[in-house]
Amino acid sequence: MNARPQYIDMPVPDSRAESEARARQLQLTKPPGSLGRLEELACWFAARTSNPIPEISRSEIFVFAADHGVASQGVSAFPQSVTGQMVANFAGGGAAINVLATLEKCPIEVVDVGVASDDEPPPSVRREKVRAGTRDLLIEAAMTDEELTAALDVGARCARGAIQRGAQLLIAGDMGIANTTAAACLICAFTDTMPEQVVGRGTGVDDAGLARKREVVTAALARARKAIVTPDSPSAGTGKPAGTPELPSAGARKMLAHVGGLEIAAMAGFYIEAARSGVPVLLDGYISGAAALAAVRLEPCTVRWMLASHRSAEGGHGYALQALGLSPLVDLGMRLGEGSGAALTLPIIKAALALHRNMATFTSAGVDGKSP
Amino acid sequence: MNARPQYIDMPVPDSRAESEARARQLQLTKPPGSLGRLEELACWFAARTSNPIPEISRSEIFVFAADHGVASQGVSAFPQSVTGQMVANFAGGGAAINVLATLEKCPIEVVDVGVASDDEPPPSVRREKVRAGTRDLLIEAAMTDEELTAALDVGARCARGAIQRGAQLLIAGDMGIANTTAAACLICAFTDTMPEQVVGRGTGVDDAGLARKREVVTAALARARKAIVTPDSPSAGTGKPAGTPELPSAGARKMLAHVGGLEIAAMAGFYIEAARSGVPVLLDGYISGAAALAAVRLEPCTVRWMLASHRSAEGGHGYALQALGLSPLVDLGMRLGEGSGAALTLPIIKAALALHRNMATFTSAGVDGKSP
Repeated sequence: MNARPQYIDMPVPDSRAESEARARQLQLTKPPGSLGRLEELACWFAARTSNPIPEISRSEIFVFAADHGVASQGVSAFPQSVTGQMVANFAGGGAAINVLATLEKCPIEVVDVGVASDDEPPPSVRREKVRAGTRDLLIEAAMTDEELTAALDVGARCARGAIQRGAQLLIAGDMGIANTTAAACLICAFTDTMPEQVVGRGTGVDDAGLARKREVVTAALARARKAIVTPDSPSAGTGKPAGTPELPSAGARKMLAHVGGLEIAAMAGFYIEAARSGVPVLLDGYISGAAALAAVRLEPCTVRWMLASHRSAEGGHGYALQALGLSPLVDLGMRLGEGSGAALTLPIIKAALALHRNMATFTSAGVDGKSP
Repeated sequence: MNARPQYIDMPVPDSRAESEARARQLQLTKPPGSLGRLEELACWFAARTSNPIPEISRSEIFVFAADHGVASQGVSAFPQSVTGQMVANFAGGGAAINVLATLEKCPIEVVDVGVASDDEPPPSVRREKVRAGTRDLLIEAAMTDEELTAALDVGARCARGAIQRGAQLLIAGDMGIANTTAAACLICAFTDTMPEQVVGRGTGVDDAGLARKREVVTAALARARKAIVTPDSPSAGTGKPAGTPELPSAGARKMLAHVGGLEIAAMAGFYIEAARSGVPVLLDGYISGAAALAAVRLEPCTVRWMLASHRSAEGGHGYALQALGLSPLVDLGMRLGEGSGAALTLPIIKAALALHRNMATFTSAGVDGKSP
């Protein structure tokens, strides 16, 4: 995956299909605007499927799993062993994301990008292990540049496969004990916020654990910033749309290698590949938000293909969403990851598209319009 | 339907089933609390179905339709003819609620409680016409006490029928041109707010229409308050739980007759009957909120069986929800009525219950718990 942004060649949403969808919305038997975000969703998908009456008949979920060297710093309420155990749970169909994917009849693939466990994963798990967990980001770069490239490629290949199978909407979820620490580092780095704002309790650390986690994130960021010698300087007039990175993509890439995670990098690669193919992605929560930020810093136009499903209860998520310019569909206090927030909102998207497709028009139903 | 509150005899949620559900949530393979409101929903339904692992296998939607004399005051963007036309659209399957009910495989019954049109409604519409629209609430009481009783009874009978068919969750929707004017009067009256706070644009009146609507609500409330001679005074020490009405139920009943609507009264009767039967209801938006307030003022404990689906874009809805002490599941800028917001959130409820039922436990999946 090339470090240089290719945004000039990236697919753009179809504004004509979007206009036609907007016109259709005004003909449906309801007061204009009365379906709120559901109307916007229909138009958003119209633009991204080049179809004024869009249909999403196939979506796929990938759960990227990996371990984090920083888990040894006491930043998680759960032991590292849980990552591999949860991979087995995903394979066995017992996790939250399995239940939600079943409800939505949505295929799910579990991808081992870097689980530390020596145990063989169940046969249904896709083996793409780049490394048995990252190095400890507190003391050294989590990944080498080669490892980062490999992890980005895992995600890109997963997206490509799904798109070849006809998927029209892609979801990436995460599993990785201590990954909210890596995600917090990335959100701080990419949104210019402070660890106090962005570091939360993750799976549920106590006050001492939270304080430790903040220290770790603060120190890791200082280490990474010092280590990164940015080769290019921020460039003006590059044709980038508003709201795209100050940080040049080469610097973003280094930051991702220094304080990211293998599953986070895979998710970023997944998002970038979807955007390059002109296929929308439905973001999940905190980890997904960090991966989305990384993707956008590497490839700015990726954001055009992103839809935010929910706002995570992990406080810093709002900063990530704000930096992405995205407004989540729901806010239900969830903070589980796995793609669960995204999967939960699939029915809202399906409802929006079904309303757009199947409602009668004023003319067809013989209903009078607004008073003059 | 008796005017006297029967709250002492009303069913109460089963706190033991709720505790057992809470204990189960802690065993599921996720950090405690990480499913946020979905966990609360599972426990809420456990208490209301007396089942620690609740299941909602049947829900039913009723759309209550009626006209409003106050429509002649220029308070709506649509002509009164639209109520009857939309009833035909519901019967033909072309309205938003039809599309959503189909997605959720949820039976829907359209009930004519008081459509003004002379046209025969389609045969599938339930004929319960109390009167061909209310009187103009600006100049006189919208309903007589007998008409109010009849409308409350229509709703109660609908709920009873659904419960006899095995429905475990009930939804009431509305259709009635000018009904946001009646609902605004009720929300003002029952929450002690001012028309400026509570009156919105409904189906989309312009600035002049909005000003007129506020004038009408202000004048109608003044008229109704003057006309109502409250026979009982607010009584202390009646054993009512906190947050229940200041206004005695007889006064609430008179207010509902003065400034309510036939479909709103039917919805209130529907909610009260569901509560008396110990069956939960999923509220919709603005009109539903006004009906829910009326129900709670008539029968305080009804609120225990209410769940709020969404926050309407019609501004005053928040006051109704606040007075009910309910927090909506989603806020998607919808303001259509018909039960559409409630139907849209059914999948969230189903997902919450499926997660509660089908996720693996730490023990069954061999996943380690939190670090000591």
